[in-house]
Amino acid sequence: MDGKRVIGVDLGGTKILAGIVDRDGRLERHRENPTPVSSQEDLLAGLDRAVEELLDDEIAALGFGLPSPIDQRSGRAQQAVNIPLDATIDFRARMSERFGLPVGIENDANSAAYAEFHFGAAREANSMVMLTLGTGCGGGAVIDGKLFRGWAEFGHMVIVYDGIPCQGTCTGRGHLEPYVTGVAATKLAQAEFGPAVDAHRLVRLADEGEPRAISILDGIGRHLGAGIGSLVNIFNPELVVIGGGFAAAGDFILDPAREIVAREGLAGAGERVRIVRAELGTSAGLIGAALVAFDTLA
Amino acid sequence: MDGKRVIGVDLGGTKILAGIVDRDGRLERHRENPTPVSSQEDLLAGLDRAVEELLDDEIAALGFGLPSPIDQRSGRAQQAVNIPLDATIDFRARMSERFGLPVGIENDANSAAYAEFHFGAAREANSMVMLTLGTGCGGGAVIDGKLFRGWAEFGHMVIVYDGIPCQGTCTGRGHLEPYVTGVAATKLAQAEFGPAVDAHRLVRLADEGEPRAISILDGIGRHLGAGIGSLVNIFNPELVVIGGGFAAAGDFILDPAREIVAREGLAGAGERVRIVRAELGTSAGLIGAALVAFDTLA
Repeated sequence: MDGKRVIGVDLGGTKILAGIVDRDGRLERHRENPTPVSSQEDLLAGLDRAVEELLDDEIAALGFGLPSPIDQRSGRAQQAVNIPLDATIDFRARMSERFGLPVGIENDANSAAYAEFHFGAAREANSMVMLTLGTGCGGGAVIDGKLFRGWAEFGHMVIVYDGIPCQGTCTGRGHLEPYVTGVAATKLAQAEFGPAVDAHRLVRLADEGEPRAISILDGIGRHLGAGIGSLVNIFNPELVVIGGGFAAAGDFILDPAREIVAREGLAGAGERVRIVRAELGTSAGLIGAALVAFDTLA
Repeated sequence: MDGKRVIGVDLGGTKILAGIVDRDGRLERHRENPTPVSSQEDLLAGLDRAVEELLDDEIAALGFGLPSPIDQRSGRAQQAVNIPLDATIDFRARMSERFGLPVGIENDANSAAYAEFHFGAAREANSMVMLTLGTGCGGGAVIDGKLFRGWAEFGHMVIVYDGIPCQGTCTGRGHLEPYVTGVAATKLAQAEFGPAVDAHRLVRLADEGEPRAISILDGIGRHLGAGIGSLVNIFNPELVVIGGGFAAAGDFILDPAREIVAREGLAGAGERVRIVRAELGTSAGLIGAALVAFDTLA
């Protein structure tokens, strides 16, 4: 190892996580700050501060995980749903000029997938796909060791033709996202148990053996399995990693997902592929952003 | 151009197309033979004959497009549905030893996509996905000039959760394939117009302004659009190319597909992406197989 260190920044809708990371994925120091959402100018100033708090003369590069599809050719974020960041600025060039360092940018869920591939649940695999189930449903893939640089917006695959409307600014129908997130689980839980029951409580109820709670999670898991089945037939991954807060539902959703994947996968792939929980927790995006920074030095 | 020539072989369920192709994609000579389907031994003997009929001392490599997912690491075909070819033999090594030449293998639909990318409808694009609508629904993708080496079995994405059973040996439900092929169109046409009407006649009826025919094709196109919408959000391609015999339905299916894609695509991508018909016709698979052969020489 060359001793180089980079700063990885995970920009979320509510907070900015930034940290210094070495080539082994070790997080040396990190900071958490609220995300300024009043304007793009404020948001950029908040990102600048997050970097400045950690910067020293030995930082070799910066990496940013952004909650948006990325246009790698132009270095821009596109249609960030929850924060004031848009394609009017060349984000990568702006950061590179500001700090005089090489800058890599990547979608936040792609970054998390990259981190799980190198240092987390998929560290023994050659190829993997990841889905993060949180407020939204993000996706990422690594094939033969390389981060897949398409959009990998797996939460926006159609799994229910003419199904329920998608979330936020997305005009789609029947996308995976509104069927499998914590938000989706909370909605279904509240329809069944009343307004006090959210996704966390739903999982606890299932833990206690409440059959309606188990049945709701089973339905979510089966929809998740339809999405994973599509991904198996597209990517043929060794491993599917499920992260994000709602991954806490564990086998209540993963077992039914496995059943559907076994049915949908071609050539026995649905039975071979392993579906496991992520290991790096909330620092996956930050560590992945650091890996993207290291890639600029290769 | 270096003057090198290769043999490309497109193995189909009913015929073997083989030809000599140069670096510019020009097809110099080609042969068409029926596919022997009585046993794997006979099939391999048929492929050997197809190559031998064209072979000369200046052939630099061989490429095969196979109707099956491919395991590139092991050089094997997996679960070919319509022909007696399976993963028990290392197809690539067997052909390479037999002819003493470098051999590339690829899925047939991936090969067709590669050909359309280099010499057909997508020759001006940097990234594209292709769907071939024939008996089945095949898929392929090229990203930043490189052939996507996942399975790309886009016909086996789930687009209708718990929908109709898939075809052949596939145990899936609600996959794109049984909604968008010529076979699917024939089934719908016969239910509406009786047993004499197949997909070709259905398209002619639509041409003549028959409203029920137009409506059936519209429904097929909308399902196709759901699949393309998923692919746009995964790959963010500049161009989507539709090939195979049933692409003859043209704008009767492509216009409703475009409408759905505009709705499903993130960040305006569904409106930006162009959806066009393939240009290379039945020789796309053969020319793509030749490109895969050239890749072994790179």
